Amino acid sequence: MIKTDVLIIGGGPAGVISAITARKNYPSTKITLVRNKKVGVIPCGIPYIFYRLKSVDQDILPDEPLKKNEINLIIDEAKEIDFSSKKVVLKEEEIFYDKLILATGSKPSLLPIPGIEKEGVWLIKKDLDYLKKLKEAVMSSKDIVIIGGGFIGVEIAEDLSFFQNLNIAIVERSSHCLGGSFDEEFAKEIEKKLFSKGVKIFTNATVKEIKGEKKVEAVVLEDGKEIKADLVIVSVGARPDVDLAKKAGIRIGDYGGIWVDEYMRTSVPDVFAVGDCAETRDFFTGRHIPIMLASTATHEARIAGTNVYEMKILKKNKGTLASFCTFVGDRIFGVTGLTEKRALEGKFDFVVGESTCPDHHPASLPDTQKLKLKLIFSKASGRLLGAQLMGSQRCAEMVNLLGVLIQEEMTIYDLDFLQISTHPLITPAPTIYPVIVAAQQALSKIKR
Amino acid sequence: MIKTDVLIIGGGPAGVISAITARKNYPSTKITLVRNKKVGVIPCGIPYIFYRLKSVDQDILPDEPLKKNEINLIIDEAKEIDFSSKKVVLKEEEIFYDKLILATGSKPSLLPIPGIEKEGVWLIKKDLDYLKKLKEAVMSSKDIVIIGGGFIGVEIAEDLSFFQNLNIAIVERSSHCLGGSFDEEFAKEIEKKLFSKGVKIFTNATVKEIKGEKKVEAVVLEDGKEIKADLVIVSVGARPDVDLAKKAGIRIGDYGGIWVDEYMRTSVPDVFAVGDCAETRDFFTGRHIPIMLASTATHEARIAGTNVYEMKILKKNKGTLASFCTFVGDRIFGVTGLTEKRALEGKFDFVVGESTCPDHHPASLPDTQKLKLKLIFSKASGRLLGAQLMGSQRCAEMVNLLGVLIQEEMTIYDLDFLQISTHPLITPAPTIYPVIVAAQQALSKIKR
Repeated sequence: MIKTDVLIIGGGPAGVISAITARKNYPSTKITLVRNKKVGVIPCGIPYIFYRLKSVDQDILPDEPLKKNEINLIIDEAKEIDFSSKKVVLKEEEIFYDKLILATGSKPSLLPIPGIEKEGVWLIKKDLDYLKKLKEAVMSSKDIVIIGGGFIGVEIAEDLSFFQNLNIAIVERSSHCLGGSFDEEFAKEIEKKLFSKGVKIFTNATVKEIKGEKKVEAVVLEDGKEIKADLVIVSVGARPDVDLAKKAGIRIGDYGGIWVDEYMRTSVPDVFAVGDCAETRDFFTGRHIPIMLASTATHEARIAGTNVYEMKILKKNKGTLASFCTFVGDRIFGVTGLTEKRALEGKFDFVVGESTCPDHHPASLPDTQKLKLKLIFSKASGRLLGAQLMGSQRCAEMVNLLGVLIQEEMTIYDLDFLQISTHPLITPAPTIYPVIVAAQQALSKIKR
Repeated sequence: MIKTDVLIIGGGPAGVISAITARKNYPSTKITLVRNKKVGVIPCGIPYIFYRLKSVDQDILPDEPLKKNEINLIIDEAKEIDFSSKKVVLKEEEIFYDKLILATGSKPSLLPIPGIEKEGVWLIKKDLDYLKKLKEAVMSSKDIVIIGGGFIGVEIAEDLSFFQNLNIAIVERSSHCLGGSFDEEFAKEIEKKLFSKGVKIFTNATVKEIKGEKKVEAVVLEDGKEIKADLVIVSVGARPDVDLAKKAGIRIGDYGGIWVDEYMRTSVPDVFAVGDCAETRDFFTGRHIPIMLASTATHEARIAGTNVYEMKILKKNKGTLASFCTFVGDRIFGVTGLTEKRALEGKFDFVVGESTCPDHHPASLPDTQKLKLKLIFSKASGRLLGAQLMGSQRCAEMVNLLGVLIQEEMTIYDLDFLQISTHPLITPAPTIYPVIVAAQQALSKIKR
């Protein structure tokens, strides 16, 4: 029998940051983290284990931060929770807690299609040994079909496209890859980039069957098309892993995640939930949305770790901006807050401003690339609701800049009037800085 | 005799953006811009006319934006202003104005040293023909000495260092190149980068004499050291060009620039001043500081252009953050707000937080570079006062992110709690995002 002050179940980014934040805020407490795998994996790095990372081991989530912060690490599996005695039962032992933080993560979603059980069909699991076997299998394959054009599917396709000997295809149910995250004009650019790297893309396409004697041979679409495949990766999203919580009777939310309040507290006293296993709220509507991002997870973890003993009223969850960026064929694509599509669906009264400019100045400098920015503002209040951009690595942190503009509830009038720093080799020109230009363009539509 | 509603004197970024902003805000007015040169030059691009830009013509400030915005462009020189009749006298004609915006810019500072008049000694002038001759002269030189290690001097040295046949030396009066903009640890890194590119640096060094029969042969320092030179570039700063304003009796401020209020109005009714010719105030102290940056100039121009007919009370100058970034030897260096040195000098009660991390994650990815961030917070209020960073192009826009955090008066508590977007190939890890880590480090010092 072990006794601890703070107990964290789960060793992904959400669990680790919960533990470290609790340590920073409550230095004298005993903090214990239970992980069900010997070695943790960096989730965001998984798409890059094939080409860019020389081995899967390079994607291991290091344990040093836990040691440095004096977090007890236990490798074991949590089987059940007894709230009355404040106890978590592991396979091997029992732990009594004062405060409990659930960070049990997510599981890959499955597709109910014939043939999914065949040899050669893989999921994306946060499991080192599984990923090593997947990498080996990929290395001896020729025709790879990725089912699901969300960000995992797209990123894996992009990384694999560096191998000249591989044929890669993405099958996506909706009308565009990453169409859930970006507006059409950006999603189309992503597809163009993938296409130019030799990736075949089938959109508006549903899989009917995975064909093959024992081992996979082809993916058959609803329209009868057959795509040759000796390896299939299914990346159709993930669902919260709430087995433990459900069994214990914790309240589950609309999207199947653990229900939490603004301080990441669950329906049970002294029990918090963070990361993929917890429900996430939208920044603007306050409604639950199915978002699973490491950045959101660590944000939630910082809230839980801070508030675990004392409520810090400034540190509460205002809802996620679902800020997200990715890299496809020499371009980054970023989004924060609402897209035009989501603004329409949500019945927001909005106006759009756009800007396209060279990413440094003068444009005659070598290696000039185009930066494309789209801003969405509330028409009545002028508040910035969302932003999407496409550009070179030079504008990578612009996504975070835009995210702050939204978090700070800044308006079109503030943006028109931002103090910025520019440099010929590094940024767009001060005369046409895109955030300002896009705001002005939107402003002219409001005035009209 | 010409009559105009808005008259702008000066065709640099400050003048152009004043004109365009006035057009956006007051669509039906007649706007006229007077420029004393046939062709304008992009000031920030000048250091790169040697190597990166294939010809000086590539650094021309385009006139299209003026045409597009229906701004009348007159190439002429303003000789005097008559406020009583609201008239500017040019060489060739006279213009009556309703509102006048002065954007007369700056002139390079001179050094009162023997030999400065010799052939082979050059200044950095915003003059296309002069710059073409300078480029030609550089191309036939071998030993180049740059007097002044401010950003122009450093950037020219960096661009020239790509020519293998050139010997380049910087002579800097203070203890570090760019020591006025950055704290010592960052200035040292800049010097290291220059050094690794073959640039010789003499700091704490004053020039005694420029030696040579007629043409320059060497730069002699106070300590007797002689640096061989067949070309010398003097880049020891600039001073506001206020000849016209002074003659007309407009109030001049502490640093020799035109005095302006928060709406960029001068001491004379209906006359505004923006850019290098106008005094700039510090964001924190409100005091005048000698800052001349195109980004600041365009910011001021947007204020003047907006308020020229009607006061928009939200659009006033809160003072400059002096945000600045540069690129030296594969690294960007950025600063916004106060440095530690300036915070000390200004008697601010502050605390410092630092973070060094890989600029993407996992660090085992190819092309990983180190990002170094330093944040300065007010101890009592927790407000962010300043930030400095060093890193790859990937973190370029982080300077602007940090600038917004200061502009929005955000505190250490807000930063500890920022929503960010991360991606393995593009940004540091969400678990150790440097803005959050540096804030937490500073916070731990406050708590202690």
